[in-house]
Amino acid sequence: MLPLPLLDALIDRALDEDLAASDLTSEACVDATTDATGTAVARKPLVVCGTAVFLRAFERLDPSVRVEALAAEGMAVAAGAVLCRVAGRARVLLSGERTALNFFQRMSGIATLARRYVEALPPGTSARITDTRKTTPGLRAIERYAVRVGGAHNHRDNLGSAILIKDNHIVAAGGIARAVERARARAPHTSRIEVEVASLAELDVALAAHADIVMLDNFELADVHEAVRRVRAFQGFRPLLEVSGGITLERIAELAHAGIDVISSGALTHSAPAADIAFDLALAVLTP
Amino acid sequence: MLPLPLLDALIDRALDEDLAASDLTSEACVDATTDATGTAVARKPLVVCGTAVFLRAFERLDPSVRVEALAAEGMAVAAGAVLCRVAGRARVLLSGERTALNFFQRMSGIATLARRYVEALPPGTSARITDTRKTTPGLRAIERYAVRVGGAHNHRDNLGSAILIKDNHIVAAGGIARAVERARARAPHTSRIEVEVASLAELDVALAAHADIVMLDNFELADVHEAVRRVRAFQGFRPLLEVSGGITLERIAELAHAGIDVISSGALTHSAPAADIAFDLALAVLTP
Amino acid sequence: MLPLPLLDALIDRALDEDLAASDLTSEACVDATTDATGTAVARKPLVVCGTAVFLRAFERLDPSVRVEALAAEGMAVAAGAVLCRVAGRARVLLSGERTALNFFQRMSGIATLARRYVEALPPGTSARITDTRKTTPGLRAIERYAVRVGGAHNHRDNLGSAILIKDNHIVAAGGIARAVERARARAPHTSRIEVEVASLAELDVALAAHADIVMLDNFELADVHEAVRRVRAFQGFRPLLEVSGGITLERIAELAHAGIDVISSGALTHSAPAADIAFDLALAVLTP
Amino acid sequence: MLPLPLLDALIDRALDEDLAASDLTSEACVDATTDATGTAVARKPLVVCGTAVFLRAFERLDPSVRVEALAAEGMAVAAGAVLCRVAGRARVLLSGERTALNFFQRMSGIATLARRYVEALPPGTSARITDTRKTTPGLRAIERYAVRVGGAHNHRDNLGSAILIKDNHIVAAGGIARAVERARARAPHTSRIEVEVASLAELDVALAAHADIVMLDNFELADVHEAVRRVRAFQGFRPLLEVSGGITLERIAELAHAGIDVISSGALTHSAPAADIAFDLALAVLTP
Amino acid sequence: MLPLPLLDALIDRALDEDLAASDLTSEACVDATTDATGTAVARKPLVVCGTAVFLRAFERLDPSVRVEALAAEGMAVAAGAVLCRVAGRARVLLSGERTALNFFQRMSGIATLARRYVEALPPGTSARITDTRKTTPGLRAIERYAVRVGGAHNHRDNLGSAILIKDNHIVAAGGIARAVERARARAPHTSRIEVEVASLAELDVALAAHADIVMLDNFELADVHEAVRRVRAFQGFRPLLEVSGGITLERIAELAHAGIDVISSGALTHSAPAADIAFDLALAVLTP
Amino acid sequence: MLPLPLLDALIDRALDEDLAASDLTSEACVDATTDATGTAVARKPLVVCGTAVFLRAFERLDPSVRVEALAAEGMAVAAGAVLCRVAGRARVLLSGERTALNFFQRMSGIATLARRYVEALPPGTSARITDTRKTTPGLRAIERYAVRVGGAHNHRDNLGSAILIKDNHIVAAGGIARAVERARARAPHTSRIEVEVASLAELDVALAAHADIVMLDNFELADVHEAVRRVRAFQGFRPLLEVSGGITLERIAELAHAGIDVISSGALTHSAPAADIAFDLALAVLTP
Repeated sequence: MLPLPLLDALIDRALDEDLAASDLTSEACVDATTDATGTAVARKPLVVCGTAVFLRAFERLDPSVRVEALAAEGMAVAAGAVLCRVAGRARVLLSGERTALNFFQRMSGIATLARRYVEALPPGTSARITDTRKTTPGLRAIERYAVRVGGAHNHRDNLGSAILIKDNHIVAAGGIARAVERARARAPHTSRIEVEVASLAELDVALAAHADIVMLDNFELADVHEAVRRVRAFQGFRPLLEVSGGITLERIAELAHAGIDVISSGALTHSAPAADIAFDLALAVLTP
Repeated sequence: MLPLPLLDALIDRALDEDLAASDLTSEACVDATTDATGTAVARKPLVVCGTAVFLRAFERLDPSVRVEALAAEGMAVAAGAVLCRVAGRARVLLSGERTALNFFQRMSGIATLARRYVEALPPGTSARITDTRKTTPGLRAIERYAVRVGGAHNHRDNLGSAILIKDNHIVAAGGIARAVERARARAPHTSRIEVEVASLAELDVALAAHADIVMLDNFELADVHEAVRRVRAFQGFRPLLEVSGGITLERIAELAHAGIDVISSGALTHSAPAADIAFDLALAVLTP
Repeated sequence: MLPLPLLDALIDRALDEDLAASDLTSEACVDATTDATGTAVARKPLVVCGTAVFLRAFERLDPSVRVEALAAEGMAVAAGAVLCRVAGRARVLLSGERTALNFFQRMSGIATLARRYVEALPPGTSARITDTRKTTPGLRAIERYAVRVGGAHNHRDNLGSAILIKDNHIVAAGGIARAVERARARAPHTSRIEVEVASLAELDVALAAHADIVMLDNFELADVHEAVRRVRAFQGFRPLLEVSGGITLERIAELAHAGIDVISSGALTHSAPAADIAFDLALAVLTP
Repeated sequence: MLPLPLLDALIDRALDEDLAASDLTSEACVDATTDATGTAVARKPLVVCGTAVFLRAFERLDPSVRVEALAAEGMAVAAGAVLCRVAGRARVLLSGERTALNFFQRMSGIATLARRYVEALPPGTSARITDTRKTTPGLRAIERYAVRVGGAHNHRDNLGSAILIKDNHIVAAGGIARAVERARARAPHTSRIEVEVASLAELDVALAAHADIVMLDNFELADVHEAVRRVRAFQGFRPLLEVSGGITLERIAELAHAGIDVISSGALTHSAPAADIAFDLALAVLTP
Repeated sequence: MLPLPLLDALIDRALDEDLAASDLTSEACVDATTDATGTAVARKPLVVCGTAVFLRAFERLDPSVRVEALAAEGMAVAAGAVLCRVAGRARVLLSGERTALNFFQRMSGIATLARRYVEALPPGTSARITDTRKTTPGLRAIERYAVRVGGAHNHRDNLGSAILIKDNHIVAAGGIARAVERARARAPHTSRIEVEVASLAELDVALAAHADIVMLDNFELADVHEAVRRVRAFQGFRPLLEVSGGITLERIAELAHAGIDVISSGALTHSAPAADIAFDLALAVLTP
Repeated sequence: MLPLPLLDALIDRALDEDLAASDLTSEACVDATTDATGTAVARKPLVVCGTAVFLRAFERLDPSVRVEALAAEGMAVAAGAVLCRVAGRARVLLSGERTALNFFQRMSGIATLARRYVEALPPGTSARITDTRKTTPGLRAIERYAVRVGGAHNHRDNLGSAILIKDNHIVAAGGIARAVERARARAPHTSRIEVEVASLAELDVALAAHADIVMLDNFELADVHEAVRRVRAFQGFRPLLEVSGGITLERIAELAHAGIDVISSGALTHSAPAADIAFDLALAVLTP
């Protein structure tokens, strides 16, 4: 569930971008009283995500439009599946089509990619796939939602949600141990403390500092295995292990088998291709 | 050039999304008076786009940050190229890093893809590559800018800029001829009238209606050739021919050779992968 | 049709301007439960424009207000005509009255003036009347809509919609020919290329450059006739001719007779007097 | 003085309206590095108003533009007077020109009209000219400022600033006496209580109720004289007398001579024609 | 009554602050289809204020939530009183709870404190209690509303509503007499002119200048009595007397007995403790 | 450090609230060219917080104002301490005074109260004081900042930052064990899982479920001691213990002595009285 005021703000901004100056074509070519029905149809297999946003875009233009979701959020559908239906003034459907699709295709694209990542996790392993903060500026909430709909997990939401000490923080703080110590003293007690390490030596420092989560940044597989071994051998403390950097579908299985807890991927949000969804209009006698 | 108030609004929204609740990690781990220098570096070959946005993100956080672009907008650079440098309070650089990069990577990603498309145009042909309205909601202006920086062209900006009669308009208007006629009577005289056709038969109707631009939607190559032939054979009127739908790098050359004027591709903006750019921090004695 | 989110944003801003601090008079003088009916009445002949905005202003204050348009958008009505009716809490009607009227009077004022211009076009001529970008800051969309409702046409919407090379561009570009050439190479293919000329000599240059539209800026009538003659005599190319500058009701007929295609007037939007519309309140037993 | 955040918000909104999609013409025709100087020149006599807004529009686009006001706010200038100068990138000047002028022409138009009204007040009389709440939606602050610059006065700013009991309030409240009594009990003690009357009989009621200000709505001149007489004859209390409705330049002198305190006119803001101001660009070697 | 667009803007901003990143706990722990009923209950005696805002917060999240106010605005209730009820999806109620309560507790807190001040006015005296401009940034309208609901009065709304010449204005203007004179010449005729005085000597100057209202700033009680005496003894003019500075519950009676007209207190808004209101959730079969 | 765009947005909104309609008094009484210096002075002992916001308010009105902080953020100062100085146009200082002080007094009020709470922690104990989400709508970021400046800690920022299972979630989820289990499966791995318990029996359930943090809601002191005992006796797992509800200065010491880790108090933000800060203006020859 996404907060409605957030959705409305995003949709209104997008409608303004596409439509502030009126819709020349629809106004010129279509009568004001022509009614129609529009159907969103998957042109390729995809995981459905964003039906509420898609439908809401038309409602923002005209509250009298009737909308209906025909596929459940998160459902994997085949090409040809009918996802949503809207009925109302043809001009309204034409004016809202592109904006509504731009959201729907992006969100379904992310959910579809996330699902592929999740399905690459081998049975019997316990890793989770997460996103990162590498989201589209202004669209983080709906992209993180799409990640969840796809079956993956979210990482921290923003810089104020949790502690993640990255390479540049370590430079600025003067070392891992010092950074973790300061974080523990000042961060909210509700936040775990995560630290990124670039080598096994840094991992040892992070372990000694009792970081709650250690992120292995761009580790080779052999080093991942060694990292898991060291963590399991460490006495009296068991941090979570996260891997990030260069995550591909192929690597997910081997990382999960290695015993990693969290696999995070920026590509889930910054490079997911749009899902292919068409919008087909038909003239229609509308019945209530 | 993008209008500064637009950039500032986009950046502020993105900063708010990532930073509204403060930056826990930087505030906890880094002293308020620590100074640093940050450098944006290409990790893979890319076409540079968005330096102004990247640098402005830091300036919005702290007007005393010193910023410098080290690579020209539109330049193709190799992996390792240093693109931008910012100097100031370490906390400011750390807080702005992700937001600044999210813009920079997206814009450079689009410019890089656009450049590849443009370079696929064979010498001696005259087609232009354009984007579509399939842009990220809220980011159209900067994505269209990135397309231009990449060397491609923009299609119409929004529904109020020009007439484009698409399949659904034709359904609602009751045919191509009628739609074109109405558009000519009512549209601004500054706008050309474009109509999308799904077959050669529809092309003939569009020609007869004297549409200024005809878009061939998902035409096979043979039909593209036939379309060009018919347009050239048409008496007393020469519309522009545009091709859209399923544009791939491979098809660009053959379409250009066929004599098409415009090749438009939604993937330029909705599915361009992010460019890979790193941000490296160093403690530094800052000199004015 | 204007996009609802746009209307709501404009109305909310105007209500905030007039009402943010509460309505002292209504709250002090009128009981919270008093119901009333308000009627918008033309006090002078006018062309109706803005009923949707007028009514929406009350709905934004209180969704339970019942609203009704009693005159069609674009209808020319006599003094005394009843245009709209709203029914609900008296306080709501009183608080919204001024804001609702400020929109209604401005929009009807522009539509009324546009209608007078359009009716000045002699039968048998084919010129169209258009607005310009000389609109009220922040209200362009509703003012351009009012121009259309009045029966005139819109010019390009904004700087990103189409090419119009004006005197200052020619100065900065280094001449008409060079400016037109650059525009053709870089502008969207959906935009015609218009150039403003200040003399017959400049017209010849624009013709030679194959500008799609030539705007004659502040031409004397004799020069207008000569311009039309030269355009018609030009081989193999027929641009549209637009006249701008000092357009008065009186000049419209002679310009249309001269064979001009487009007559554009900034006064349509920047100097149209407000239409005279009253709002009369009556206490009323409201029936559903 | 207008608050800078208000100005910036108005300007940014107007720039967004005209420029969000980039400036096709300037970007196509003018080199990014071309410098120029632009001069705002009165084409007809006018009262200068809005130089700060005019100049600020360019600064918002590019803080490096150099701006200069050459005429004082409120000064009456002849045709040909140079009002403002801006220097910087030619593209910036071209992109900002229309937005800057739209504000400047409107504000100077209102100030010019207000000045004419004020100058119509005969020497030796003490009436003041005021505006009303019939302002352009969203632009009230700058229009009221223009009224002051023209030499006239402002009426109350909005519904929360002061009590003004109008005809519709009287209907809803059940009479003048009751409305005034309630207003006195509940309104802020900083607000005077004004009541609109439609007849001499109502004036008597308002006097008996000790309204602080009485507005004579659409009174004939004879009735205005009688109203002044009755007010002066009233014992122990002297309200201000305001006249509103159908105020023309011609009537101002006779109303002032009659002894009226306040003459309010909606036309000052809702129907003032735009002042005629040109913007002339010249290529220029810019010196610091 | 507060304008709905204002409420919605305040609520949306607050929801965004608390909920932009989704509600982790509710989404993780509660099924999407679980229905519930929530009840707002006073935990201590209080004056009810803000039911409309409280209920609207849930409606903004989900228009299908059913809401009901069970206590009238302005009613003094005992601990345990049920104030409001909302029914709908449990997730929605949980997500909106804190935001809704934050408004409700603040508004009821102010109304409760205002009521205590008002009830401290002795019978037979005629002073009114008012707020000041010392309100929470961004919340002035709802805090002033709460003051009214509590039974106290509002002072001027903002700097544009009325004239109040304070100590710093007197410094900048060069004295009380000069400041009052200038204010009378330039301020709207709808505004009374108030001046703050710091001594009896300044009071005499203000009287001589015929200020409409004189505010005694931090006067000792003996000086307050003397001020009342001087005002009553002054010939031909009777300004209102206001006292401000260090107002406590205890002083209200003595100030009212002394004959003061207005007692203004910043603490009403800047230091009112939040009212104690709980929100209790119950699973419920929802019946329409 | 607070992000500048956030500060500017808050300040602009507050200035708009107080000043949108212009500052009648300053404009009427003070010459436009009068310069002055204003000084913020503590009238009672306080902890300084908000100097940057105070100073920025004047800069937003007029970038040429010179500003200076004279007391460090977080410093405890005595009555009479000079905190800030601003110099510039007298009108600007007068127009910004109230808005600037409203922020400064609120922020310093919270910091002052937080400092008192923190100083009530006995030496040798290790509890931390935290705020809650009971903040002023729209001002959470600056109120949480004030809590930190006062020396206390922040709890989670918002509903998307961390998991806190409260009484109503337990009702909706069907019990503590089930809620914790679901939270662990779905929440971000960066968030600890906190659960609120209302009794020792619920504490045992939370311990068995391995909640990372247990909040004792409104526990008597004896039960607090027993809770600490049970937590310490629990095998193999040691959650943090937080106490909330009815926190007073007096109880802090006994709770800390009892061994509690976190003491959270809503009153820190929702009921902190404003600090008493004056703004004194002096005419001044300004030297650069």
